[in-house]
Amino acid sequence: MSTIITNVAVVTMNETREVIQHGFAAWKGGEITAVGTMDMLEALIAEERDDEMDDETGESFRLIDGKGGILMPGMVNLHAHMGMIPFRGLGDDCRDRLRVFLLPMEQRAMDAELVYLSTKYAAAEMLLAGVTTVFDMYYFEAEAARAMDEMGIRGIAGETIMEEEACDFKDPYEALSYGESLMKKYQGHTRISACVAPHGTTTCSAGLLKAAWKLDDAFGAPFSLHTAEMDYEMDYFRETSEQTPAGYLDSLGVLGEHTLAAHCIQMTEADLRLFAKRRASVAHCIGSNTKAAKGVAPVSRMRELGIFVGLGTDGPASGNTLDLFTQMKLFANFHKNETRNRSAFPARQVVEMATIGGAKALHMEQKIGSIEVGKRADLVLVETRSANMFPIYDPYSALVYSAGPSNVDMVFVEGTCVVKAGKLAEKSVEVLRGELAGKMAKTAFAEEVLFSL
Amino acid sequence: MSTIITNVAVVTMNETREVIQHGFAAWKGGEITAVGTMDMLEALIAEERDDEMDDETGESFRLIDGKGGILMPGMVNLHAHMGMIPFRGLGDDCRDRLRVFLLPMEQRAMDAELVYLSTKYAAAEMLLAGVTTVFDMYYFEAEAARAMDEMGIRGIAGETIMEEEACDFKDPYEALSYGESLMKKYQGHTRISACVAPHGTTTCSAGLLKAAWKLDDAFGAPFSLHTAEMDYEMDYFRETSEQTPAGYLDSLGVLGEHTLAAHCIQMTEADLRLFAKRRASVAHCIGSNTKAAKGVAPVSRMRELGIFVGLGTDGPASGNTLDLFTQMKLFANFHKNETRNRSAFPARQVVEMATIGGAKALHMEQKIGSIEVGKRADLVLVETRSANMFPIYDPYSALVYSAGPSNVDMVFVEGTCVVKAGKLAEKSVEVLRGELAGKMAKTAFAEEVLFSL
Ligand SMILES: [Zn+2]
Ligand SMILES: [Zn+2]
Repeated sequence: MSTIITNVAVVTMNETREVIQHGFAAWKGGEITAVGTMDMLEALIAEERDDEMDDETGESFRLIDGKGGILMPGMVNLHAHMGMIPFRGLGDDCRDRLRVFLLPMEQRAMDAELVYLSTKYAAAEMLLAGVTTVFDMYYFEAEAARAMDEMGIRGIAGETIMEEEACDFKDPYEALSYGESLMKKYQGHTRISACVAPHGTTTCSAGLLKAAWKLDDAFGAPFSLHTAEMDYEMDYFRETSEQTPAGYLDSLGVLGEHTLAAHCIQMTEADLRLFAKRRASVAHCIGSNTKAAKGVAPVSRMRELGIFVGLGTDGPASGNTLDLFTQMKLFANFHKNETRNRSAFPARQVVEMATIGGAKALHMEQKIGSIEVGKRADLVLVETRSANMFPIYDPYSALVYSAGPSNVDMVFVEGTCVVKAGKLAEKSVEVLRGELAGKMAKTAFAEEVLFSL
Repeated sequence: MSTIITNVAVVTMNETREVIQHGFAAWKGGEITAVGTMDMLEALIAEERDDEMDDETGESFRLIDGKGGILMPGMVNLHAHMGMIPFRGLGDDCRDRLRVFLLPMEQRAMDAELVYLSTKYAAAEMLLAGVTTVFDMYYFEAEAARAMDEMGIRGIAGETIMEEEACDFKDPYEALSYGESLMKKYQGHTRISACVAPHGTTTCSAGLLKAAWKLDDAFGAPFSLHTAEMDYEMDYFRETSEQTPAGYLDSLGVLGEHTLAAHCIQMTEADLRLFAKRRASVAHCIGSNTKAAKGVAPVSRMRELGIFVGLGTDGPASGNTLDLFTQMKLFANFHKNETRNRSAFPARQVVEMATIGGAKALHMEQKIGSIEVGKRADLVLVETRSANMFPIYDPYSALVYSAGPSNVDMVFVEGTCVVKAGKLAEKSVEVLRGELAGKMAKTAFAEEVLFSL
């Protein structure tokens, strides 16, 4: 059965960045079959009617009135830790938060069930905000993969590998082989895939980084890790070698087309050129980086050099919100201000980074990131009836400077409606929260002064 | 009749910044009469019941279940141009936007009716986002005052005075006397007052600044103007005098306790000390300033010196959104990053600036800015059922890092419910938009490529 959404402004994000002011998009199964102006709709409908008559199953097409909203490609969140919902808001302004709260709690309280319930919750929050694809990295990723699958989001489950004992595996090589099974399990799955994701440049040994790289490479999966982010990381490199994190990764042979480096705040010009040369990608997390006072990554220079840059929220412990509208707004303001140029990064470029840019960073641009015939039907309808959405002279401007997650009206992933009238189509946030809160109450999280209202 | 909202976390913002985890607040007419824990509620209700028996009018108290939301003081928007909704999103990323779009369109299209309709719309948008008090400055402010009054918001209508011909008056002294009538008209009004607001430090003559000061001073009204914001302004001072904008204002005798200077981005240490000495206040517009790549005002130093700083959205042409949640988030990230200190400006301080801080900058802290017995009942109920609002360890964190305008559930101004279940209680955004769009269609705004969906 075809679905046609009509009466929308289609922000296609195709090669020419075409915007169809009064348009429609149609899809069948998970694939986009037509995109055009409302004038062209009648012909399409006639065709569909013929199809219907020939169809022995009795199925017909379904029309959805987009009511003058903006139809945009589903957004791509390049860096998240979906299992960390229980940490959101815990010690936000605390100086040594990582060591005081995050690491000890992770050891004490995190288990497979909590990751499963937290990832379901995070997936709900992302879908409600128009994120249709997410690169997740955390522990117990078989649970994360299962959760994402059940929630209907498109996701890559990155099993985090690190030298020290993690909450799921003591031995990183066990984690590697767990990751490998996961990668095998989801081969050929429509929406879910997996990879192994080293924690960072200093938290894994050289041997471990190489082993992870080899595994990801064999599966054509992203090799993603925290890079040039932390002060302790930069100090370590300054104190122990002549290398930068980027140079180090390259010397190990693990910087390449499938490398997706998160953050990349502290990069030299040589590092950036190296990234460009190796065609490595960057997951830029402006909200997380600036809230933690870590500085602003040199995205302007990255883009000049042709490095693929997309946006990430980081985990809910770091960036709190999981939507890309917040990131787009922060991105625009930080980078305009950083370059002292109000014309830098016009809204269209910011929407690019949240959609097709993210898709390119994951090498999924053949499947997702734009509204084009033949691509997967990952679509977001942004309503324009709320107070903040008037007037609209330029839909990119409206999406970046005015819109928020609450303007998301409908979301489709692989052609399936997952959000309808701003609510989950098949699930309930209340139920998901109840399950997660119930589990948290049985863990060490309950000992923190949880403000249960 | 008393109203009692129960089952809420009360973020009082009183002197000790008390948070009542399970509490209530009660008010009668426009005044807060009780704030306490749920344990204390029964006694209060018994008392109210007695009151009721004595009441010949038959009125009784009204109970509202806050359903575990956060009750916070209504937010104070210190700097806005509510008449500028028609400009939102017009040439956002254009380099010389002020001269290319804003000024010519203001001359060609702005009139009394447009200001009236735009201000009503802006008031709706602010109320829906939890802003209950706004300092507005624009033209035709009698219309703005009328609009704010009708919408039920608390507001100060600042008639903009400038040397050059404005869209309402050719002669600034006519604008001054129009402002004076407005100030007289609203003397004694519960929610609305007026003042004259010079446009800026270089766009008014010394004589005009002094005349405006004298008038505002006579009425005890704020004297508010754009200060140390624009490159052309700073160039002018560098080229023509030894003075800075702050020094210049002081030399004229117009820097004092009732001065509310908007922006103050380019301030020297001496300027800041001068502001502190004169007890002048600052309306900080982080979103507008950084989107326009103008830099980050030295708020950390301002607060060290004891200068009252509150938050402003600036006009919808500059900052696009009119809510303070967006400003709080931008504020936290920009200032933490600026000071390279993740503990700088903890969430509580940010909420302070949006509430009691703004009230102090307007010298209205005896009336508004906190939830305390005897203050006016300007209250915002933030719901905690949406996906982005879980878990909550600290309500300040939740308000600053997680919440958005869409989490605003109920809003009361002067005890009257203006927003209920996230919708205007007595008005309709659709109707307000229809009226504004209808008017815009008859003006030069219609010639801009208005993306009417
Ligand atoms: Zn991360
Ligand atoms: Zn302004």
